[in-house]
Amino acid sequence: MSTGRFISLEGGEGVGKSTQVTALAEALRHRGKDVLVTREPGGSPGAEAIRSLLLSGAGDRWSMRAEALLFAAARADHVEKTIRPALAAGRWVLSDRFLDSSLAYQGGAGGLGISQVRALHRFGSEDFLPDRTLVLLLAEGVERARLRDRGESDRIGGRSNAYHLAVEGAFRQVAREEPGRVRLVDAAGATTSVTGRLLTALGDLL
Amino acid sequence: MSTGRFISLEGGEGVGKSTQVTALAEALRHRGKDVLVTREPGGSPGAEAIRSLLLSGAGDRWSMRAEALLFAAARADHVEKTIRPALAAGRWVLSDRFLDSSLAYQGGAGGLGISQVRALHRFGSEDFLPDRTLVLLLAEGVERARLRDRGESDRIGGRSNAYHLAVEGAFRQVAREEPGRVRLVDAAGATTSVTGRLLTALGDLL
Ligand SMILES: Nc1ncnc2c1ncn2[C@@H]1O[C@H](COP(=O)(O)OP(=O)(O)O)[C@@H](O)[C@H]1O
Ligand SMILES: Nc1ncnc2c1ncn2[C@@H]1O[C@H](COP(=O)(O)OP(=O)(O)O)[C@@H](O)[C@H]1O
Ligand SMILES: [Mg+2]
Ligand SMILES: [Mg+2]
Repeated sequence: MSTGRFISLEGGEGVGKSTQVTALAEALRHRGKDVLVTREPGGSPGAEAIRSLLLSGAGDRWSMRAEALLFAAARADHVEKTIRPALAAGRWVLSDRFLDSSLAYQGGAGGLGISQVRALHRFGSEDFLPDRTLVLLLAEGVERARLRDRGESDRIGGRSNAYHLAVEGAFRQVAREEPGRVRLVDAAGATTSVTGRLLTALGDLL
Repeated sequence: MSTGRFISLEGGEGVGKSTQVTALAEALRHRGKDVLVTREPGGSPGAEAIRSLLLSGAGDRWSMRAEALLFAAARADHVEKTIRPALAAGRWVLSDRFLDSSLAYQGGAGGLGISQVRALHRFGSEDFLPDRTLVLLLAEGVERARLRDRGESDRIGGRSNAYHLAVEGAFRQVAREEPGRVRLVDAAGATTSVTGRLLTALGDLL
């Protein structure tokens, strides 16, 4: 049985994470991998219940600190009930968002501090980390246009433009601090081109 | 306008917290205080939603760590949305359980460590503490008999006897560490006698 790997896809709203998780899973299956696709917040029954608390209601339903604690609780459940068992069974796990979204949204842009949010992950999930984190980056105009086409905005996605710029800055900071785990990937161009870049960034793990 | 005070009542299942919160509120109103009665987990709309996640489902639905994070999130919301505004308006706030239940159940009995659970409270609620915490203590046989009469057991209350002994040990430890805030009160005898002891333990605040 080959070893499973845990890969997370990250980036702001509309950069193409969900599209690429599907495409990447297909490409990995083509290479003979048994792939589990999952997402955050959510990915296990308990975490999906927390997800619905997080994404419903008004934008100020939760304080930034309560929000960070809820994300950490959901992630602890997701890791324990879904991700670890799949890896133990030799599967590859692709997650549409994971820890780095909390580091970027609540820690960086939300002002709680990346290290404080990382401490919650240490408490909740024993600092369990992906083998590789792929951060999709897109020039702002393109991202907005894609989102407009999709006509989507949830409670967190609906925050201001400055907030989203701060999110991207935080993703870049984490990538500088953990270059072995985190790779920045250009999300512009055709879906197949982006998938090719993601596979290149996974080259050493394949 | 007189200054509001925040009082929490603590103790194991069936020691009489809910009974005494009601009786104590009555006694304080008699003394002219404007009293708000609240409870944990819960006490604000967001925290009550988290409460229903915590208390429903199987006993192992949540890991101890996820549970501690959910309690901390609920408490952050309870403090921000209910307790602080009431105190700011000069009211007395009586809470049926608060932080010390997390310290005792998840920190002490659950094995996470009292200081780790305290750190979550520092993160979520800036270490906001009651002016006085009253821990009701009852000999084990009496506690069990009262609970049997009530015929109640929820997901957390249903845990083993050794667990409940460890909970009491943790309450005693916190009382030793914070003698100014936390007072142990004998919960045996008639309801009115117990209420009298609670008022005595609040003497300096009245
Ligand atoms: N390479 C691409 N070129 C053009 N549009 C894209 C591309 N990738 C995704 N999209 C579209 O952009 C929108 C956002 O993509 P999505 O995968 O849902 O992003 P995310 O999950 O990061 O929010 C969707 O409407 C999707 O079809
Ligand atoms: N002083 C007392 N003497 C006898 N029974 C009591 C006393 N105080 C409470 N009870 C009963 O014991 C049970 C548990 O009390 P309750 O206030 O619900 O405890 P808790 O909230 O700590 O679980 C209830 O049935 C209650 O009526
Ligand atoms: Mg998506
Ligand atoms: Mg009660």
